[in-house]
Amino acid sequence: MTPDSPEFRVAVNDLERFMERVLHRAGAGTASAQATTRALVTASRMGTDSHGLRLLPHYIKALQGGRLNGRPDMRFTRRLPATGYLDADDGLGHLAGYTAMAHAAEMAETMGLGAVAVGNSSHFGAAGCYALAAAERGLIGMAFCNSDPFVLLHEGKTPFHGTNPIAFAAPLGGETPYLLDMATSSVPWNRVQQYGAIGRELPDQVAADVSGRVTRTPAEVAALLPLGGSDFGFKGAGLGGMVEVLSSTLSGMLNGFRLLPMGGPDMQTPRGVGHFFLAMNPGAFSERASFDACLREYLADLRAQPANDGAEVLAPGDREWRCRSRRDAEGIPLDSANQAAYASLATEFDVEPLAPLS
Amino acid sequence: MTPDSPEFRVAVNDLERFMERVLHRAGAGTASAQATTRALVTASRMGTDSHGLRLLPHYIKALQGGRLNGRPDMRFTRRLPATGYLDADDGLGHLAGYTAMAHAAEMAETMGLGAVAVGNSSHFGAAGCYALAAAERGLIGMAFCNSDPFVLLHEGKTPFHGTNPIAFAAPLGGETPYLLDMATSSVPWNRVQQYGAIGRELPDQVAADVSGRVTRTPAEVAALLPLGGSDFGFKGAGLGGMVEVLSSTLSGMLNGFRLLPMGGPDMQTPRGVGHFFLAMNPGAFSERASFDACLREYLADLRAQPANDGAEVLAPGDREWRCRSRRDAEGIPLDSANQAAYASLATEFDVEPLAPLS
Repeated sequence: MTPDSPEFRVAVNDLERFMERVLHRAGAGTASAQATTRALVTASRMGTDSHGLRLLPHYIKALQGGRLNGRPDMRFTRRLPATGYLDADDGLGHLAGYTAMAHAAEMAETMGLGAVAVGNSSHFGAAGCYALAAAERGLIGMAFCNSDPFVLLHEGKTPFHGTNPIAFAAPLGGETPYLLDMATSSVPWNRVQQYGAIGRELPDQVAADVSGRVTRTPAEVAALLPLGGSDFGFKGAGLGGMVEVLSSTLSGMLNGFRLLPMGGPDMQTPRGVGHFFLAMNPGAFSERASFDACLREYLADLRAQPANDGAEVLAPGDREWRCRSRRDAEGIPLDSANQAAYASLATEFDVEPLAPLS
Repeated sequence: MTPDSPEFRVAVNDLERFMERVLHRAGAGTASAQATTRALVTASRMGTDSHGLRLLPHYIKALQGGRLNGRPDMRFTRRLPATGYLDADDGLGHLAGYTAMAHAAEMAETMGLGAVAVGNSSHFGAAGCYALAAAERGLIGMAFCNSDPFVLLHEGKTPFHGTNPIAFAAPLGGETPYLLDMATSSVPWNRVQQYGAIGRELPDQVAADVSGRVTRTPAEVAALLPLGGSDFGFKGAGLGGMVEVLSSTLSGMLNGFRLLPMGGPDMQTPRGVGHFFLAMNPGAFSERASFDACLREYLADLRAQPANDGAEVLAPGDREWRCRSRRDAEGIPLDSANQAAYASLATEFDVEPLAPLS
C-alpha cells in the first residue's frame, strides 16, 4: 500500500468510466473492458494499489502490442459435473477470472463444489477479486495464478516460481467476508522498489542478490525469497509449487519458469498464463446456519484477541474493507506517476481526463 | 526430524504388528487400529518423527481415559453429488481421515471433485498421510486440520490458532508424488523443545514469550509466531485461519481457540477436532496425459535449478521419499525415550517387545 495522496483523488464512478473508455479504444470489447475495470477498481478501492489502477497502462500496452486479444472467444468446456476448462483465447485475465469463477460457482451451487482450470490466459490483477466474487454469491472461493520467475526455491540460487498468489474468501451473510490474498513470496516485489526509492533497508531474509545470497539492500535485489525466508522457505516454495501445479499443470500450460516476463519487452507474444478457481458451497457439508454461526463466533474470537501495543488484531480483509469505505467516501488517490500516466492515456485515446474530487 | 539413531532400529512389519496389537488391547477395533498404524508408520517411514511412532503412547492414554472412542460408528452423509459430512463419533482421527478421503476420492473419480468435512474427530497425526492416500489413487489430495492454540495471530499477544497444517499431494504416475505437508506456524513446537534440549538459540522471529514478545530462548517460549514472522505473519495467520474455516467452520465444530488441549490433563472429554479433505481428478480439467507431461516437466525444471553451496534443491516430498527408502531397508530408529515408552507399552499390554534389527 502506498500512503494515500490527498492531492488527487477521483470518484469510483469516474475512474470506472475512464478505464472502460480507454480499454475500449485500445481494442477491448465490452465484456473485457468491464471485467478489467471491475478487477482494477475492486483492488484500488481496497487499497491493494500494486494490483489496482496502476496496471491500466500495462494492459493497454499489451493490447496495442497484440499480446492480448481484446475480443477473445473464451470457450468453457464442462468436463465432469463439478469441473471444467476455460480456454481464455489470450484475452484479458480479468474476464477469464470472472467467467471461470462464475462457472465454478454455478457448479458449486448444485454439486457442492466446482472448479475451473483456465489456460491461454494472461495477468488477472489481484487474485482476491475472484475469491471475493464467489463470496458475494454466498460461496467459499479460492483463486490461484502462476507468474513469471521472481522467487527463489528453498536453497535455490536463481528465480524459479512467480509470486504465485493464493486467495481465499469465506462469506458471512450481510457482513464483509474473510478475505486472504497473499503472494507465496516473502515480500512483494514492489515493496523492494518502494524501499529502494526511500533508501530504506529491507527486513532480513526476504530478498537475494544475483548470486542468490540474501541481501537487505534494495538496489542489489535480483530475486525474492519464498515465504519463510532462508530457514523455512521450503514452506513458501512448497505453496508456490502447489499454486503452480493447480494453475499451469491442470490447465496444460507452461510452468512459470518458462513464461515470458510480464514486463516485456515482448508485447506481441501471448504468454499462456494459467489460473485455477475453486468454489465451495458452505451448506453442502453441514447446515448453512451452522456455518454462519461458527464463522461469526470464530471471527468474534479472533478480533477479541489482545494486540501488541499500538497495534490491532485484524481478520484478513478487515484492513481492506476499512480502506474501501474510506475511498468510496473520499475518492481513490492517484500518486504523481499515475496522474501523469492517466493524463497521457486521456490524450492518446482522446478521452476526457480524470478530474480530481474537490 | 531427529537424527537417526543407529542403536535401535525396527523393521516396518514388526512395528506395524506391535502397534496394531497394543491399540487393539487398549480398546481400538480392527479398523481403528489399522488406520492409526498406517498413519503413524507412514510418517515414521518418511522421517516425520514428530507425527510418527512417538504418538502411540498418547493415543493409548486417550483411549484409556475415554476421550477417544476405540469402536466408533462413523457415519458418512453425502449431501450433494461432490460433498459430504463424516461424523467421526469421537474415534481416532486416522480412521476418520482415511475414511473421509476415500469418500472424497470416490466422488472425485465421477464428479471431478470431492470434499468431505469431518466433525467430532480427534488428532489425526500427519496431514500428509491423507493427501498421499489420494495421490496413491491418482488424484490430487488436500488435507487440513485444526488444533488447540499454540500460534499467535499477526500483532497478537496470546496463542490463538493451532499449528493448523496444510497438506497437498499431486500424483505422478509410477513416480513418487509432489507432497507438501506444512504447519502454518513459523516453526514446529517440537523444534523449540529440541533446541531447548541442546541449549541452542532459536532463529529470529519464530517464537514468543508469555507476553507475546519475540524470543530466541527456548525456555522462554510460550507461543509460536505464524509463518512469516513479526513482519509478514499476516500470511501465516491468514493461512491458519483458512485451515480453521475449512476444518471447524464447515464441520460445525468449535474453533481451535476453544479446543481442549491435546496434551491433557483431561483425557476423558472428547475434543471435537475438525478436518477437511479435498480430492481433485487431474483428468477432469484437461487431458490426463497433458497433466502428467506438465507435472513431469515442472518437476524436472525444479530439480535442475542451481543450489546454494553444499545444499540441494528438492521438490516437496523428495527428502521424505529418500528417508522412506532408507528406513525400509535399514529399519525405523527409536530414540531412547521411545525405546522406553515402547518397552513399557509391551509390559502393560502383554505384547512381545519390539526387537531391534541386528
